[in-house]
Amino acid sequence: MPGTNQQILVAELPKDKLEESHFTLRDSPIPEPNDGEILVKTRYLSLDAANRAWMQGATYKAPVVAGEVMHGMTLSEVVESKHADFSPGDIVECQSGWQQFAVHKPNEIGKIAVRASLSNHLSVFGISGLTAYFGLLKCGRPEKGETLVVSAAAGAAGNFVGQIGKIKGCRVVGIAGSDEKCAWLTGDLGFDAAINYKTTKVAKGLAEHCPGGIDVYFDNVGGDILEAVLFQMNLNGRIACCGAVSQYDTGSPQPGPRGVPGLIVVKRLTLQGFIVSDYFAEREQATDELEQWVADGTLKVTEDIIDGLENAPRALIGLLQGENIGKRMILVA
Amino acid sequence: MPGTNQQILVAELPKDKLEESHFTLRDSPIPEPNDGEILVKTRYLSLDAANRAWMQGATYKAPVVAGEVMHGMTLSEVVESKHADFSPGDIVECQSGWQQFAVHKPNEIGKIAVRASLSNHLSVFGISGLTAYFGLLKCGRPEKGETLVVSAAAGAAGNFVGQIGKIKGCRVVGIAGSDEKCAWLTGDLGFDAAINYKTTKVAKGLAEHCPGGIDVYFDNVGGDILEAVLFQMNLNGRIACCGAVSQYDTGSPQPGPRGVPGLIVVKRLTLQGFIVSDYFAEREQATDELEQWVADGTLKVTEDIIDGLENAPRALIGLLQGENIGKRMILVA
Repeated sequence: MPGTNQQILVAELPKDKLEESHFTLRDSPIPEPNDGEILVKTRYLSLDAANRAWMQGATYKAPVVAGEVMHGMTLSEVVESKHADFSPGDIVECQSGWQQFAVHKPNEIGKIAVRASLSNHLSVFGISGLTAYFGLLKCGRPEKGETLVVSAAAGAAGNFVGQIGKIKGCRVVGIAGSDEKCAWLTGDLGFDAAINYKTTKVAKGLAEHCPGGIDVYFDNVGGDILEAVLFQMNLNGRIACCGAVSQYDTGSPQPGPRGVPGLIVVKRLTLQGFIVSDYFAEREQATDELEQWVADGTLKVTEDIIDGLENAPRALIGLLQGENIGKRMILVA
Repeated sequence: MPGTNQQILVAELPKDKLEESHFTLRDSPIPEPNDGEILVKTRYLSLDAANRAWMQGATYKAPVVAGEVMHGMTLSEVVESKHADFSPGDIVECQSGWQQFAVHKPNEIGKIAVRASLSNHLSVFGISGLTAYFGLLKCGRPEKGETLVVSAAAGAAGNFVGQIGKIKGCRVVGIAGSDEKCAWLTGDLGFDAAINYKTTKVAKGLAEHCPGGIDVYFDNVGGDILEAVLFQMNLNGRIACCGAVSQYDTGSPQPGPRGVPGLIVVKRLTLQGFIVSDYFAEREQATDELEQWVADGTLKVTEDIIDGLENAPRALIGLLQGENIGKRMILVA
C-alpha cells in the first residue's frame, strides 16, 4: 500500500514539564500486515493526563520510551485485514499511538458497534464515560442525599462523574481551574456548586459548599486537594482514586497528603484505586445505561476535538495545563 | 463508702514526646453512685498507643483534656449498684480511665461473661484480639497462599494478626523493633519471617522476605513503613488501616507517604480504615472463634502485665517506645 504514515515520536522523555521539544514528527512508510494481522487507520486519538504518567515509568502498562511512537488510545478503522474476524470498514479501539496507520494483532484491537457519532466512543461511551461510571458507582458507591466532590471536574471523566452523581441524587460539588469551567459546571451541567482552586482556598470552599461534610470523593488529582478533602470527609466516606494529575507533569512528585493514614483510621475511610478495564465484564450494560441517560437528556456530552495529528503535542501540553473543557481528542482522519 | 480513689490526672498535654511529668497523682474520695448509677472498681487498665493519639485532639472519641483523669479502657468490677441490671461482683468493660474507682451510667458499661483469666478480656478476647480479627478478616480479606505483612507485629494486636494470618494459610512477615521481638515472632508464633526495622532497611527486608510481593498489609504505624510497603504491594492488594503509631508521640506529624494516591490507582489498592467497635454486632461469634483457636493451641496469648496504677505513666511511655511484647496492661486491683 503506497503512501506515508505520519508519526509523532518521543524525542526525549521529559524530566520536568512536558514541552513540544520532547516530540518529533516523522513520515514513515505505511506498514504491511502479515498473515493474521490487521492494518488500521487512526480516526480519533484520545488525549489523557495519563499519557504524561506513562512517561514517568511503569504504571499499569509498559512505559513510553524515547525514540518510539508516543503511546495513545485510538479509535481506528480497518483498512486491510488478514484475519477472518475483521473486515475493512470495521471500527475498532486500540492503542495505535500517535500515528496515522498501525498494524495490530487481533487481540490488540476491539471491534466497536458505533452507537452515535464516532467521537462519542472516546468520550461518553469510551474510557471517559466508563471511568466516571464504574469509578463512581463501584468505588464511590454514592447514596441518595450524600455529598459528592469531584476534582478536575470539567475534565473528560470529571464532568460525567458529577452528572452521574446528580442522577443518583447527590449534592455535587466540583473543583476546577477557572471561573469559566465553574460557571459551566453549575450553569450547564447542574452541579450544586463549583470551586475554582486557583482563586479559592479549597478547604474554605469545601467548608462553604459541603456544610454536611463529604461522603464521596472522586479524586483525579491527588496532592493538596486530596489532603484538603481528607480533612472534611465524613465517617465511612469513600474515595475513588482515579488519578493524580497534580503529580504527573513534574520530575519531583510531592510527598503524600497529611492525614494518611491517620484520618483513614479515625474516619473509617475507604480509598480504592481502580482502572476502568477492571470492570469491562460489565461494559455493555454500563454503556447501555449511559446511552439511555444521554438520550433522555440527563447526561450532557462535551467534546473538545482538535483537528490534525501534528497538533497532538501542543494539545496534550494544554490538557496538562487544564485548557480543555470536556473530553479532548485529536481528529486524525 | 470510705476510702480513697487513687487517680492519675493529665497535668499538661504533651507538645512533643510524652513524659512522666505530663501526669500527676491525686487521692480523691471514692465517688457515690446516684440512683440508676453503678460504682465500679478498676481491675485491669488497658494501655494502648491510641491513648497518646487521644492527647492530640479529637479522634473517634472526646479528646483528653489537661486537669482531668487520663482516659483509658478498663476491666472493672461492680462494687455498688443502684441499677437493676448490675450487681456487685459483675465484671464490666468500660472507660473508667486511670483511677481505682468510677461511677458510671448503665450505657457506659458492658457486662462480660468471663471466659478465662480476666486479663484475657483485655488481650485476645478484648480489643486487641478483636481488632486483629476484624481488621484482618474484614479489611485485609486474606486468601490462602497470599502474603500478609503486619507492622508493630509484636504489639498487642499485631501478634494476633500474624497468627490469624497463619491460620488462614498466608505467608506472614512481621515488622518489629528489636531482634528479640523478631525471634519471638518467628520462633514462638510461627511467622515466616520478621524484619527489625531499626537495623534493616524495610524496603530491602520486604523485597527479601516477600519475593512474590505483598497482598495484604495490616498497618499499625503509618509513616515510612507504610510508604515502603506501598511500593511492594501487588495488584488489587488490601491495606487495613488500624493505626499510625509512628505519628502519635510527636507534635509534628510527617506528611503522608509518597505514592498516595499514585500507587493506589496504578495497583488498584484498597486502603480501609476501621475501628473495632464498627464490627461489634459480630463480636460474640468472633470471640467464640478466637476462643476455639486458643483452645486448640493455634493462637498463643502473650500478656505484659504491670502491677500498680502508679506505674501507668511510665508503662505507657515505654509502650510508645516499643518496650512491650504482646498486650501491655496495668493490674490495678
